[in-house]
Amino acid sequence: MKTCEIKDAFGIDALQFSERPDPVLQQGQVRVRVRAVSLNYRDFMTVKHGGARGVQLPLIPCSDGAGSVVEVGPGVTRVKTGDRVAATFFQNWLAGDITPSCFASALGGSIDGMLADHVVLHEDGLVHTPAHMTDEDAATLPCAAVTAWQGMVTKGNMKSGDTILVQGTGGVSIFALQLGIMAGARVIVTSSSDAKLARAQQLGAWATINYKTTPDWAKRTLALTDGEGVDHVVEVGGAGTLEQSFRAARVGGTVSLIGVLTGFDSKIDPYPVLMKGLRLQGIYVGSREMFEAMNKALAIHQTKPVIDQVFPFAEARAAFKCMESATHFGKIVITL
Amino acid sequence: MKTCEIKDAFGIDALQFSERPDPVLQQGQVRVRVRAVSLNYRDFMTVKHGGARGVQLPLIPCSDGAGSVVEVGPGVTRVKTGDRVAATFFQNWLAGDITPSCFASALGGSIDGMLADHVVLHEDGLVHTPAHMTDEDAATLPCAAVTAWQGMVTKGNMKSGDTILVQGTGGVSIFALQLGIMAGARVIVTSSSDAKLARAQQLGAWATINYKTTPDWAKRTLALTDGEGVDHVVEVGGAGTLEQSFRAARVGGTVSLIGVLTGFDSKIDPYPVLMKGLRLQGIYVGSREMFEAMNKALAIHQTKPVIDQVFPFAEARAAFKCMESATHFGKIVITL
Amino acid sequence: MKTCEIKDAFGIDALQFSERPDPVLQQGQVRVRVRAVSLNYRDFMTVKHGGARGVQLPLIPCSDGAGSVVEVGPGVTRVKTGDRVAATFFQNWLAGDITPSCFASALGGSIDGMLADHVVLHEDGLVHTPAHMTDEDAATLPCAAVTAWQGMVTKGNMKSGDTILVQGTGGVSIFALQLGIMAGARVIVTSSSDAKLARAQQLGAWATINYKTTPDWAKRTLALTDGEGVDHVVEVGGAGTLEQSFRAARVGGTVSLIGVLTGFDSKIDPYPVLMKGLRLQGIYVGSREMFEAMNKALAIHQTKPVIDQVFPFAEARAAFKCMESATHFGKIVITL
Amino acid sequence: MKTCEIKDAFGIDALQFSERPDPVLQQGQVRVRVRAVSLNYRDFMTVKHGGARGVQLPLIPCSDGAGSVVEVGPGVTRVKTGDRVAATFFQNWLAGDITPSCFASALGGSIDGMLADHVVLHEDGLVHTPAHMTDEDAATLPCAAVTAWQGMVTKGNMKSGDTILVQGTGGVSIFALQLGIMAGARVIVTSSSDAKLARAQQLGAWATINYKTTPDWAKRTLALTDGEGVDHVVEVGGAGTLEQSFRAARVGGTVSLIGVLTGFDSKIDPYPVLMKGLRLQGIYVGSREMFEAMNKALAIHQTKPVIDQVFPFAEARAAFKCMESATHFGKIVITL
Repeated sequence: MKTCEIKDAFGIDALQFSERPDPVLQQGQVRVRVRAVSLNYRDFMTVKHGGARGVQLPLIPCSDGAGSVVEVGPGVTRVKTGDRVAATFFQNWLAGDITPSCFASALGGSIDGMLADHVVLHEDGLVHTPAHMTDEDAATLPCAAVTAWQGMVTKGNMKSGDTILVQGTGGVSIFALQLGIMAGARVIVTSSSDAKLARAQQLGAWATINYKTTPDWAKRTLALTDGEGVDHVVEVGGAGTLEQSFRAARVGGTVSLIGVLTGFDSKIDPYPVLMKGLRLQGIYVGSREMFEAMNKALAIHQTKPVIDQVFPFAEARAAFKCMESATHFGKIVITL
Repeated sequence: MKTCEIKDAFGIDALQFSERPDPVLQQGQVRVRVRAVSLNYRDFMTVKHGGARGVQLPLIPCSDGAGSVVEVGPGVTRVKTGDRVAATFFQNWLAGDITPSCFASALGGSIDGMLADHVVLHEDGLVHTPAHMTDEDAATLPCAAVTAWQGMVTKGNMKSGDTILVQGTGGVSIFALQLGIMAGARVIVTSSSDAKLARAQQLGAWATINYKTTPDWAKRTLALTDGEGVDHVVEVGGAGTLEQSFRAARVGGTVSLIGVLTGFDSKIDPYPVLMKGLRLQGIYVGSREMFEAMNKALAIHQTKPVIDQVFPFAEARAAFKCMESATHFGKIVITL
Repeated sequence: MKTCEIKDAFGIDALQFSERPDPVLQQGQVRVRVRAVSLNYRDFMTVKHGGARGVQLPLIPCSDGAGSVVEVGPGVTRVKTGDRVAATFFQNWLAGDITPSCFASALGGSIDGMLADHVVLHEDGLVHTPAHMTDEDAATLPCAAVTAWQGMVTKGNMKSGDTILVQGTGGVSIFALQLGIMAGARVIVTSSSDAKLARAQQLGAWATINYKTTPDWAKRTLALTDGEGVDHVVEVGGAGTLEQSFRAARVGGTVSLIGVLTGFDSKIDPYPVLMKGLRLQGIYVGSREMFEAMNKALAIHQTKPVIDQVFPFAEARAAFKCMESATHFGKIVITL
Repeated sequence: MKTCEIKDAFGIDALQFSERPDPVLQQGQVRVRVRAVSLNYRDFMTVKHGGARGVQLPLIPCSDGAGSVVEVGPGVTRVKTGDRVAATFFQNWLAGDITPSCFASALGGSIDGMLADHVVLHEDGLVHTPAHMTDEDAATLPCAAVTAWQGMVTKGNMKSGDTILVQGTGGVSIFALQLGIMAGARVIVTSSSDAKLARAQQLGAWATINYKTTPDWAKRTLALTDGEGVDHVVEVGGAGTLEQSFRAARVGGTVSLIGVLTGFDSKIDPYPVLMKGLRLQGIYVGSREMFEAMNKALAIHQTKPVIDQVFPFAEARAAFKCMESATHFGKIVITL
């Protein structure tokens, strides 16, 4: 199997293409010909310095990939050769609540990930690709889309008529926009780029706010909602934006914390959580059960992920640099 | 105030138009000029024989009405003169769970209802009419639409990607179809009339089943859903259809029991509830909190209720006869 | 391995003791030396005529057993040799919602069960025995206790201050009594035997009703609850008792349907479900996640199951006859 | 009516005893002879400087009081003369979710409170005193006990077998301890005083931690729970303790933020909320529906609140000084 991996040093330029022997399939295992991989900010951080939890080298990065089953081991019943599949972020979080043991099964973090032309996974760690999607499409789902789904649907109980604020136009945020619209909510999108906001509007955003020209976007959000605030904020910035998110949320509202793009240095005043009866919920991807429920929704609506750029495998480093530049709108994909 | 009421005998033809003195407003009370009233099967049963819980005569029937505030009593703060409002089915079920005391405040049942040109209600028993709706539109909401909302949203936790089966094309069922689509679900509608099914399809039904030509509609539902069954059945028939609903539901699915149009004589085998891990939930209209949440959703989507026919006040009896004939698609409205 | 199985004919007397070859352990599999098995009404029905879903013969009956791990196959990480464990009813319902595929993994129904001195199971289908319990104790949990837990806790959201009605004094019912008390609820128990009711009271029942001398136990329940009714009924009778359960439940209350001991012939009027806004939920055992949550509760409270009688393996048939006689209070156990 | 109020200056010593005319009862209003008032930290802050939201003077402080109905206005049906009652913190939060309008009805903050021998309230803002409680007991419930109930039960879904960490031994914390035990949870209590911890243990605490001698109480909590962490932290400290609370909580656990006793100056790093999938929920007292559900639980268990000290009305200032000293264990009460 051909891989692109973090061998002995961190950094995008230190990524190495190499060859590994093809493992023999054990009971329940499946060999997948990976056709597409998508990048998340977490994958970029892992390549850059090992990420928040640290990793052991060598490591094949990237949690998100899709392709076709080319061989099944003994006892496999959930998939068969030829099936188009995507891998789940946590290979052993099948259903129910998260448990500490899930963390040890995170692709491209605790264990080798998807940036390889072939991977061997347990059949339990796969979901079928929705029929209307290409492998490139399916490769965008495992981390970003499932995160948005867990935050908004599984733990957010989003309902028709809700107002959702989505920060930025990265992978999770665009999925949050799409899932919000599918569920009958109205979605407000923020960005520093009017061009990106225009695209968000084309995708169905109900309102947009340029946080560069309108730095107090919480105030603008309150104005847009008759002073009431939004039901749900999909927070990707972390400490740097949370205080505005608390102001933008309605009394009794929810803030899903799914990223800390503004960095790890700043801190927040938690008092508004008390005074407004808010719920701040940390969302860390999700289970296979959530992934499959989401796929049903995507299939019914024939929703296609928004892909910003596609890179060939040989240019995997360029794909990570594209992520670093933070100019993308939607997902960055590598094809193999 | 001019009323059309059940004076001393039941039956549509026994309905009498009469004049009552206008009450003086007490603390918190509001006088509403009713402009439109809609009929529910429950109102028809009340006129016919007093309904399931019995009533005391004389009684002004009908739970559903909308119009404008023409006078406010002392201490009123939630509405002002000129506001367009609709009444809540249970005048004192404001929020939270239903309590036995709610039943004593049911308009057109426990207390006088809305079939009058003026009514006096407590301000707590009113909601504002969504701006995009006429009074005729708003008059269709209090019973049928709120029932569908409670069953599917508040207690059904419907989510995008769910499949819902809706029986028939009466008031609740058409709202259930509309709410299902708004929430990103796909909706299957049954009816004995191909013409009605064609209209349901125009409204966005994903699939339709004529239960006259396909009496085993549960089997057809399973076929439509790859053998899995639907997530939720909106059951309006009662004992006569419940057993098929249990078969049509998926393992772990929900059946909202909101009506018993097939009558009170038959019984059902509850065993499938156990074997399939089903939830059968009785839905009895809903609270003001639910009504207001629903209005937000309807406003965002600019959803208009489906009105079958509109009758002038003088022909109120004809409106009830139209309900009796069961030929309607959506709601029957009387204007005043 | 020594088994007691349904070979080629149904009926307690047709049960046969036989020897089967010991299977070689596959990836993820575990050999358990079974020390105790408990009986459920469902096991009795399976032995008698194959049960509600039918079975393929030969079949080792019984879902419930506990013992010690004596050998682990390759890749096993959840247990080790010497661990005391019990099996889960559905071998592959690990967490989250039930799915149709779970049914194919029901021990002693779809697949061979626990009535053998050794069994081979996947490590995922085991839970650790709470330290304060013997193997006899642990063998009583998988079906009856988990069913009560799912109905009352997972899907019942039982809270301190609730009033629960428990029918009879069989396995599930006594667990329901114990779980109710642990959760700060007050529990009403019904039985036809004053002696059994006295024992229920010793276990902490708040009130008891002899349904032989007080056939209208629903009326008595209403009297005990100031006319309000109970929050939750744990229904084991099915059609023969459900109508009284609907009357005994409060407006907005829940009835967990977990058994149909009164038989399959009678039917019920579902109308009260609508009129009282009730929830009737079918409960079919539960997941490993529920089992483990319950074990935590049992451990904290050092709760011991109530065992009616213990039979040696050689007298397995007598144990089934004891179940048939329906004279037991709590669980019937076979030791191996 | 005799009052003790904040006239024109803040500070405990500026509290003034004065006489106000007795208002005539309006529709729905009730006159209550207040017999006992309890103090919360929020009341102390209000007296000291107006509290977090600011107040308009003059103001009768204190949200919590209980006594007997001595006169009912026209239209009152929920209570009658002679009934023993307590007032709800938010006079118009009856049920369902909190809304912004609730804040305007907070006793002793937005509107005059309970520190008077007679008060006039709407009947909707009262609950009946549980029969086993004195007025002193009942006066301790409206703020502190209802807050603990909302956090742990209504929004915390606490279940038997959960482990709860409660900070300190103030009013809310001792109620949290009592409610946790009632619900079958095991409760860990922290305090800087071994004497107070000994009393907590007498009340049933499963474990105690002196955070003075064990400053890293999060580490100790992890040790007590086999490294897993607790299901729920009842957080009264705010920013000064939250980071330890995040460490003490299990993956997927909940932290109820109900107070900020450590002050308003420090900030926190929200990152662990993301990494551990935590829920941080702000709890601001609760609704009448919650109050009544809690009273049922307290009545079943005959639970008596823990009262630290009782002061006569004339020594109201001393009661506030006792609160300021923070030496109390449980509630401080003033009798009238």
